[in-house]
Amino acid sequence: MVTSPLPSPHAAAAAAALQRQARLTKPTGALGRLEALSARYAAITGDWRNRFARPACLVFAGDHGVTVQGVSAYPQAVTRQMVLNFLGGGAAVNVLARQMGAALWVVDAGVIGALEVHPQLIQGKVAEGTADLSTGPAMTAEQAAAALELGARAAAIAFDAGADLLCVGEMGIGNTTSASAIIAACTGRSAAEVTGRGTGLDDARLAAKCALIERALALHAPASEQTLRKVGGFEIGAMAGAMIAAAQRRVPVVVDGLISTAAALIAEQEAPGVRHALLASHRSAEPGHRAALAALGLEPLLELDLRLGEGTGALLALPLIEAALRTLQEMATFDEAGVDDRDADTAPAIGTAAGASHAVA
Amino acid sequence: MVTSPLPSPHAAAAAAALQRQARLTKPTGALGRLEALSARYAAITGDWRNRFARPACLVFAGDHGVTVQGVSAYPQAVTRQMVLNFLGGGAAVNVLARQMGAALWVVDAGVIGALEVHPQLIQGKVAEGTADLSTGPAMTAEQAAAALELGARAAAIAFDAGADLLCVGEMGIGNTTSASAIIAACTGRSAAEVTGRGTGLDDARLAAKCALIERALALHAPASEQTLRKVGGFEIGAMAGAMIAAAQRRVPVVVDGLISTAAALIAEQEAPGVRHALLASHRSAEPGHRAALAALGLEPLLELDLRLGEGTGALLALPLIEAALRTLQEMATFDEAGVDDRDADTAPAIGTAAGASHAVA
Repeated sequence: MVTSPLPSPHAAAAAAALQRQARLTKPTGALGRLEALSARYAAITGDWRNRFARPACLVFAGDHGVTVQGVSAYPQAVTRQMVLNFLGGGAAVNVLARQMGAALWVVDAGVIGALEVHPQLIQGKVAEGTADLSTGPAMTAEQAAAALELGARAAAIAFDAGADLLCVGEMGIGNTTSASAIIAACTGRSAAEVTGRGTGLDDARLAAKCALIERALALHAPASEQTLRKVGGFEIGAMAGAMIAAAQRRVPVVVDGLISTAAALIAEQEAPGVRHALLASHRSAEPGHRAALAALGLEPLLELDLRLGEGTGALLALPLIEAALRTLQEMATFDEAGVDDRDADTAPAIGTAAGASHAVA
Repeated sequence: MVTSPLPSPHAAAAAAALQRQARLTKPTGALGRLEALSARYAAITGDWRNRFARPACLVFAGDHGVTVQGVSAYPQAVTRQMVLNFLGGGAAVNVLARQMGAALWVVDAGVIGALEVHPQLIQGKVAEGTADLSTGPAMTAEQAAAALELGARAAAIAFDAGADLLCVGEMGIGNTTSASAIIAACTGRSAAEVTGRGTGLDDARLAAKCALIERALALHAPASEQTLRKVGGFEIGAMAGAMIAAAQRRVPVVVDGLISTAAALIAEQEAPGVRHALLASHRSAEPGHRAALAALGLEPLLELDLRLGEGTGALLALPLIEAALRTLQEMATFDEAGVDDRDADTAPAIGTAAGASHAVA
């Protein structure tokens, strides 16, 4: 994927946002993390007056050869079945996209089995599933490039439809194994630190999943190079490509859970600095998510023990992002509202008023 | 305040919600805390198919005699100025109520200074500010009763307008002192454990605020009885009255920050069991909030370092509550969508597939 240089964070826009926050009718800092979020949004988009009107959610789907090793509690066929559920409107991501007013596209990056034409389906199958990452590279270099390009194409479709904010999510039975391997490779953590139960493994299968990832990392050493090709997934590469395309246009990307954050690590490998265009939505129940977020310098807004993927966490964060922007842009300032700002210097010392029962030490 | 018995949590409705959660097209538990939230909502309202269409936010305002002791970083006049800001639409709570589609009323429970008639203002001044709780009771028994009744009246106005969910918030310079005293009295914690910086005290003034609360608790011992009269506030008593009125009608109440959670402790003192009708929105930066939430058995959805009050945290939680209800009610089940449920028993053991490079221990 040939990428033009990424724009830098717009420091002046962020500073303007924080200066305005200090003049709004509230104690400074009283909106907590929403204040810094409003400044980060300004830094991404280039102006503190920007907000989003047309959010879009791109759900990238792909199958994983490693599922033959039994790393998931669900059969591989569920990837395609869930894509059909997305296209039928019955999945959690559909419900939340409707609630949040977000357009939804499903991107077939590598699902096993044919999918009929559908207005919400972006066809882009790189191959019918990756190869088994525990026995060799998950994909060829050409396939990795194709996955990244597909993501850029999907993002362009959303932008052409007016999208000014992207949520990214995914579906792929077996992809927590790929994501954990990516996170271990990119952060230097051990498999044990970054591997979780996915959709619901018991203790014995979790231990086996860990051991499999540890073996894969040894097989592919150094896995910190060409990570997508060695242990990635088509939907993960495509997500990374979408993130890069958004960053180039100063469009914020709301990252979802473990897998999309692993994709962000891949994106950062491909286009350093793309992390500055990302907003973290939630911290999932998967242990690797914390490590991946920390490596990207991202602090999520929500911590609700979600472990669903699809983009559900990203969509849940949209009202908070909107609230951060609306309060910044719509609240009255102290001057406008005729409200006194804090005046600690002239307030009496505590306990010195007439009638105070004791002197304050 | 004469209260009829509160309805019990509807266990069958909660069980029905959880049974449905297990059949939806997602791994069991993958929506994390939203799943338990959907069941709690069902328990409050009596049916898992209930959701809210007309949320309302009631912002209770009152002044505090203890401000003469210098416990706030802001002058007392700011209470009335901020009420005018609420009525003018410029405060954070206005912005968020607009975003969330919530009706907004301001309740004058005891603001110093006259307030003109306004369609969003519920007049109910118990008195122009409480007495200084550090030197005697904050109010008379009659005033405490009047505050509780005012809250019930304000809730009734919202219900008459169709409100099916209440957010409660407040404004009152000095009311973190009252709230911390209430929380210490009701939870048995020391003032030091539950007292914070409010709108922005420095270390010295925080220490003085703590000492003042400790003295007040000694003055009023046992402060765990008639807590509202001894160390409360008019807006706090009114909030408690609104909570009780909502619980009687099976209308959920979304609690905001430190002060509204202190009001919930008062409500529980007046009408044990009212806590079952409450939903906690966020955990604020104030240390007493954690203790108050724990005493009520409430687990908040958000932790964003908010310390603004007004009902802002409660409003920010509304989309999450709506998401919990919509996913429960609108998602397809495995049967409906033709998606295979998990099938761990028939999946191969990890690492046993052909081509596995190593046996799994």
